[in-house]
Amino acid sequence: MTAIGIYGSAGRMGRAITDQIEQAGATFAGGCEAGDDPSLIARAADVLVDFSAPAALEAHLVAARDAGTPIVVGTTGLGATQHAMIDAAAADIAVLQTGNTSLGVSLLGILVREAAARLGTDWDVEITEMHHRHKVDAPSGTAIQLGEAVARGRGTTLAEIRVDGRAGLVGARTEGTLGFGSLRGGSVIGDHSVIFASEGERLELSHRADDRSLFAKGAVRAALWLANRAPGRYRMDDVLGL
Amino acid sequence: MTAIGIYGSAGRMGRAITDQIEQAGATFAGGCEAGDDPSLIARAADVLVDFSAPAALEAHLVAARDAGTPIVVGTTGLGATQHAMIDAAAADIAVLQTGNTSLGVSLLGILVREAAARLGTDWDVEITEMHHRHKVDAPSGTAIQLGEAVARGRGTTLAEIRVDGRAGLVGARTEGTLGFGSLRGGSVIGDHSVIFASEGERLELSHRADDRSLFAKGAVRAALWLANRAPGRYRMDDVLGL
Amino acid sequence: MTAIGIYGSAGRMGRAITDQIEQAGATFAGGCEAGDDPSLIARAADVLVDFSAPAALEAHLVAARDAGTPIVVGTTGLGATQHAMIDAAAADIAVLQTGNTSLGVSLLGILVREAAARLGTDWDVEITEMHHRHKVDAPSGTAIQLGEAVARGRGTTLAEIRVDGRAGLVGARTEGTLGFGSLRGGSVIGDHSVIFASEGERLELSHRADDRSLFAKGAVRAALWLANRAPGRYRMDDVLGL
Amino acid sequence: MTAIGIYGSAGRMGRAITDQIEQAGATFAGGCEAGDDPSLIARAADVLVDFSAPAALEAHLVAARDAGTPIVVGTTGLGATQHAMIDAAAADIAVLQTGNTSLGVSLLGILVREAAARLGTDWDVEITEMHHRHKVDAPSGTAIQLGEAVARGRGTTLAEIRVDGRAGLVGARTEGTLGFGSLRGGSVIGDHSVIFASEGERLELSHRADDRSLFAKGAVRAALWLANRAPGRYRMDDVLGL
Repeated sequence: MTAIGIYGSAGRMGRAITDQIEQAGATFAGGCEAGDDPSLIARAADVLVDFSAPAALEAHLVAARDAGTPIVVGTTGLGATQHAMIDAAAADIAVLQTGNTSLGVSLLGILVREAAARLGTDWDVEITEMHHRHKVDAPSGTAIQLGEAVARGRGTTLAEIRVDGRAGLVGARTEGTLGFGSLRGGSVIGDHSVIFASEGERLELSHRADDRSLFAKGAVRAALWLANRAPGRYRMDDVLGL
Repeated sequence: MTAIGIYGSAGRMGRAITDQIEQAGATFAGGCEAGDDPSLIARAADVLVDFSAPAALEAHLVAARDAGTPIVVGTTGLGATQHAMIDAAAADIAVLQTGNTSLGVSLLGILVREAAARLGTDWDVEITEMHHRHKVDAPSGTAIQLGEAVARGRGTTLAEIRVDGRAGLVGARTEGTLGFGSLRGGSVIGDHSVIFASEGERLELSHRADDRSLFAKGAVRAALWLANRAPGRYRMDDVLGL
Repeated sequence: MTAIGIYGSAGRMGRAITDQIEQAGATFAGGCEAGDDPSLIARAADVLVDFSAPAALEAHLVAARDAGTPIVVGTTGLGATQHAMIDAAAADIAVLQTGNTSLGVSLLGILVREAAARLGTDWDVEITEMHHRHKVDAPSGTAIQLGEAVARGRGTTLAEIRVDGRAGLVGARTEGTLGFGSLRGGSVIGDHSVIFASEGERLELSHRADDRSLFAKGAVRAALWLANRAPGRYRMDDVLGL
Repeated sequence: MTAIGIYGSAGRMGRAITDQIEQAGATFAGGCEAGDDPSLIARAADVLVDFSAPAALEAHLVAARDAGTPIVVGTTGLGATQHAMIDAAAADIAVLQTGNTSLGVSLLGILVREAAARLGTDWDVEITEMHHRHKVDAPSGTAIQLGEAVARGRGTTLAEIRVDGRAGLVGARTEGTLGFGSLRGGSVIGDHSVIFASEGERLELSHRADDRSLFAKGAVRAALWLANRAPGRYRMDDVLGL
């Protein structure tokens, strides 16, 4: 049986993942929180899952690399620094980084990329998301991932076209840009919409998560898939065969 | 210049199309309403556009076929009888039948088909639409077209899986079926949503028409594209190169 | 401590309510399923909650009335017969009948009634709802309750204006009517929208249930409120002081 | 017949209003653009309508006050300075300031205020809006007006609770705040949603403008209503008797 270790095991997602491990036919190799030595579970586990915080990620990647253990990175709010660390680690171990572990969101990313590729830049793109009141980063990791799908479809990068949090006298919209709007409130698990708006018509591609266990199940599925992979950087699409 | 003749020229869509012909660089070959002889414009025009009524369609197809003139059929509410007539006519002339002439809706159909093909039947599919208070048929022609895209994606036919207008003690949902819900009110031009719902998550692919001239422009574009085609049955996707 | 008895205790809602009783500071007086004698818990409980089935309701009301025990009726799919039984029982005991036990839905009903009262019949009204694939009746009890709020706001009855499940060549919309559209799929707990549509604009008042425990908590709250009330027919609004 | 003068007559709204004046049984007293002397139409008109720009508003208010002519202010993007000017002018002339001239939006404001008053601060409030790509300010004037309705319902001011354009590591939501999200794209006339989100449920109150002439008709209706009013500051609700 595959032994799964969890960084951020005391958090909301960490606990949900722990609950799913057993019924997926795997075993729990142990959890790790801030203050603990990350190398212990890195050596004990066949595969690691990280739902901690951006600042903690480096130490976890180092531990995973030293132990030669594959790792699923589900922590959101990552910057260029963290992505560079992930790329570096992927030279030696299998790393799957994703802002969202659901099947629906992965398929949404594929459809969004296709729509962006087929529609010209006279179709403006906006991404809106809503999450519960406890979420600390905006836009969500999933919203950013969808923005990257738009950028890939258009042969550019998200950094080139991204506009965050419009407020004030911002002027008319610039063609080719992508705007984000982030809403927070209540216990909303996660709603995302990608809107393509042209003269006279709109195409809207959306996803709603109705049950948090969805993500935990997906994270465990990703971990089991990643356990014996060759070094490299993987995506949720690879797991799902999309 | 291409001369376009219109069946149903006095209706809402007919008038909107007439308004768009000139600025598309074409000429108006004449209109035809109930009571007129349909063969006159069939001979005068390079291509015909039909936005009349299902009961009137047969006479228009006969006239088009006799004159050897291609025809765009945009009339909705068609049944098996009308589709058989269209297939028969397509043996001799080019016929493009569509429930919707917008680019966004055509792309939506492609994305819906792809989603249906990739998601198993544990993802239930529902289609909902809203149109203005004057619309007489339900579901809309576009909703039916989207339903056919779902059916094609799943390797079946819409007739096999279709459930209309749930009301009363209908029992639990049957796996693999597709339900339609039709709303009517105000001056709504046309909203459509295809919802894929699974345990714990939903994917929703939607289109909103914000401006009626959109459809008239698309109909003229389709007519210009069809004017010199070989006999056969065509779709809006062909016009748009999707 | 108030002792709560449950008709339909083995169903989805019945189990959820049982889970909430203790943490609301009440006690569980027992459950009752088809085949059991309903008079036993009617005598043992201070208040009853019914989430069974329309066909079973009469026996439960008789038992409650004989025992002089107040009852919350949350069963949906009721017809005129059941409503007449409830009215009759309310002559002797306190009965609270509701299609939905959430605060948000109760407030929605109030807002819908107010909007209907202020907007003329040139604003068409449509109600759409989505629920999980296991739901057997359509429209939902909550949708019907919202329809009644529209009717009250307009000084009429739902029966006068109701149009269910449009399908086929239904003709143009009749002024003053109210249409229902019911969607089913996945594990959706309950979405409801009331749409007021006029020439050129739409007002949409919606509710989404994100967590099923919401309803169970509301049912227990209603039961505790009803326990010592005088005979009569009550509504959720009374509990919430709306 | 009432003579209506328009500041900003060459803009999108100014032209739409001019188109509606005649069929409302009024006359056009003249337009005024940047560079023109605003006092000319202030003296010629029975009532003025301003859809210009915040920077131009002061001169228009001075001209209206000097001439003793009532004025409807529909320009959006106003700050505290402009609101103080409006209050000062309202000492001598009738001034109706509104971010939106539609009946539906005015009613939405009333419903939003009521919902905010009845729901505790454990219900988080978010406002999202979408407008066409040419709009230069965010959030929209209507979104701000809806935010003020929330604030009034809660016995506070919008300035106290407002959070604009979340982006980055913003931390968890603060209870009692109100967040705005602004989307821009295509030719969208104006969509607004006020979302109340609690543990396990959401109430969403929305408006969609489907046709721009709606606002022009409402502006003319407001002007005709204001023409002979006593000095003071008025709202769209007064016009509609809401």
